[in-house]
Amino acid sequence: MKRPTIADIARRAGISPSAVSYALNGRPGVSEATRARALAVAEELGWRPSVAARAMAGAHSGAIGLVVCRPPSILGAEPFFMELLSGIEAALKPRSYAVMLQMADDQEAEIAVYRRWWAERRIDGALLVEVHVSDERIPVLSSIGLPAVVIGGPSVDESSPVHETVDYLHALGHRRIARVAGLPHLVHTRTRDEAFALACARHGLERCPTIHADYTGEEGARATRRLLSSAERPTAIIYDNDIMAVAGLSTAQEMNVRVPEELSLVAWDDSQLAQVVRPALTAVRRDVPAMGGDAARELLARIHSEPVPPAVAEPARLTSRGSTAPPPAEVAGG
Amino acid sequence: MKRPTIADIARRAGISPSAVSYALNGRPGVSEATRARALAVAEELGWRPSVAARAMAGAHSGAIGLVVCRPPSILGAEPFFMELLSGIEAALKPRSYAVMLQMADDQEAEIAVYRRWWAERRIDGALLVEVHVSDERIPVLSSIGLPAVVIGGPSVDESSPVHETVDYLHALGHRRIARVAGLPHLVHTRTRDEAFALACARHGLERCPTIHADYTGEEGARATRRLLSSAERPTAIIYDNDIMAVAGLSTAQEMNVRVPEELSLVAWDDSQLAQVVRPALTAVRRDVPAMGGDAARELLARIHSEPVPPAVAEPARLTSRGSTAPPPAEVAGG
Repeated sequence: MKRPTIADIARRAGISPSAVSYALNGRPGVSEATRARALAVAEELGWRPSVAARAMAGAHSGAIGLVVCRPPSILGAEPFFMELLSGIEAALKPRSYAVMLQMADDQEAEIAVYRRWWAERRIDGALLVEVHVSDERIPVLSSIGLPAVVIGGPSVDESSPVHETVDYLHALGHRRIARVAGLPHLVHTRTRDEAFALACARHGLERCPTIHADYTGEEGARATRRLLSSAERPTAIIYDNDIMAVAGLSTAQEMNVRVPEELSLVAWDDSQLAQVVRPALTAVRRDVPAMGGDAARELLARIHSEPVPPAVAEPARLTSRGSTAPPPAEVAGG
Repeated sequence: MKRPTIADIARRAGISPSAVSYALNGRPGVSEATRARALAVAEELGWRPSVAARAMAGAHSGAIGLVVCRPPSILGAEPFFMELLSGIEAALKPRSYAVMLQMADDQEAEIAVYRRWWAERRIDGALLVEVHVSDERIPVLSSIGLPAVVIGGPSVDESSPVHETVDYLHALGHRRIARVAGLPHLVHTRTRDEAFALACARHGLERCPTIHADYTGEEGARATRRLLSSAERPTAIIYDNDIMAVAGLSTAQEMNVRVPEELSLVAWDDSQLAQVVRPALTAVRRDVPAMGGDAARELLARIHSEPVPPAVAEPARLTSRGSTAPPPAEVAGG
């Protein structure tokens, strides 16, 4: 069985194809009875104007584009992207918008995909993830006129939760705090790096190393091993995602460093992962689906030239669990 | 700046719009020099025929549909879907196909989305995930003529890895083996349930309970708590995904049941998650990206009426790590 056409409706309704076409396009020239009959049969057969016909008529495509350029192994490990997608989908649902999704190797490939989709009128706008320090996408998309919104853009405060976490660890008595951070070319990593340096300086802490890693468990474990083998072993480590924090917990266990008695750990992005391990991880909790939803609603508003609705994502907050405690007495205040 | 049109190309190339149109459509009536000039300017301006024009000409839409109906919380926690997506994307890349992605609350909503996309000529085919015991999608999509392929369909052997795992645990000396399974209305859960019952019967084991759960850490922990509190505590538990297995490990630790000395654990789907916890989890390893890739290649072949390429996904295999060992002496062979 094929997709129903105007001819199928005409045959079934017993009226001419041109009368059906007039009726479905709301044009005058057919009687009300004929129009009602054509609409009823169209409904019955599941007929819809094709996206092609609608786009030819200048309508919106009803889809937004999302191109992701991270290696699949990392995408699979991190709950972040799937949570983001679920928030985006929820925001698009009331308007029946779909997401066109593709993975790309690098920003150049990503830009090529957006260009093609936009030129082919497949998408009405784009959501950008993972803003780079020097990001080529934004000027290019702006130059071709494609509406685009950055997820987790400047409205998301990446700095305060770092200060809050360092303040909390300092209040517990920690003086040697380290950080296992994400990829250094991403804007949010840079922002957190700067906030961490500032917060440590504010408390007069001098030994606060940051090691950059790629968000995988493997690199999280390696960075933790390096920190715990160093002469000035930290008593607390803050991680930039959850999978690296869980790997850090395992590494500490392997090296017989007790958590939280000898080492406090803080994860970023509070997923099920952080909650199912033991001890459960103290974590910076972000509302990732809401971040995706806010960006999607802003994009829809821009596409349809409507006012942008206020963002609903709550600011990130530190949630304390069993992985943080005062440092051992012999190093406290040292 | 707007998307380039035929008129833009004509203006820039200094030739008439109809000549540009003839040239770009490969029709006779323009000189080779004019054709070359029109193509060069079109390339320079980034012009592409719109998806609308191509679809009107009967071309393919260049996209496939994927509607997922699982709660976002579960999607986010499990590496499975993102790994699947990455495999699908890799297979679509050589043909520049995109994925139209949407989430739905239930199968009825899922079917409505597929119907709409197909009627609007947005997609050329569909990939179906999570086949239900009585699945309404397959007859409906078949009746409307939408090419569809089931991911992890009958070609994926869900039964052998269950037998292999039970055989292995039995060889270690385990006689009380339990299973924390997935949702009972899914075909692969049903298949594994039957294989587990058969494998236990083959070894003459009578106390092999299966508890169904929803793949979350919360339900994995609850099921483990129930099993470890029962009069006939199992010495080994097999889980249907990795997040439930990690939650099971944490629950055992909370209840002071040592893994693997007093309790062996086996996870399904060997992700980073199973590898970063301690002890690392013995797991049934599936090549999830390859499963997605095989399904996508089969769908592309069907859409283009080409022979289906052979599947490349390796069969699932048990990978043993630190979470499995012989049971304590007092219960071995009991």
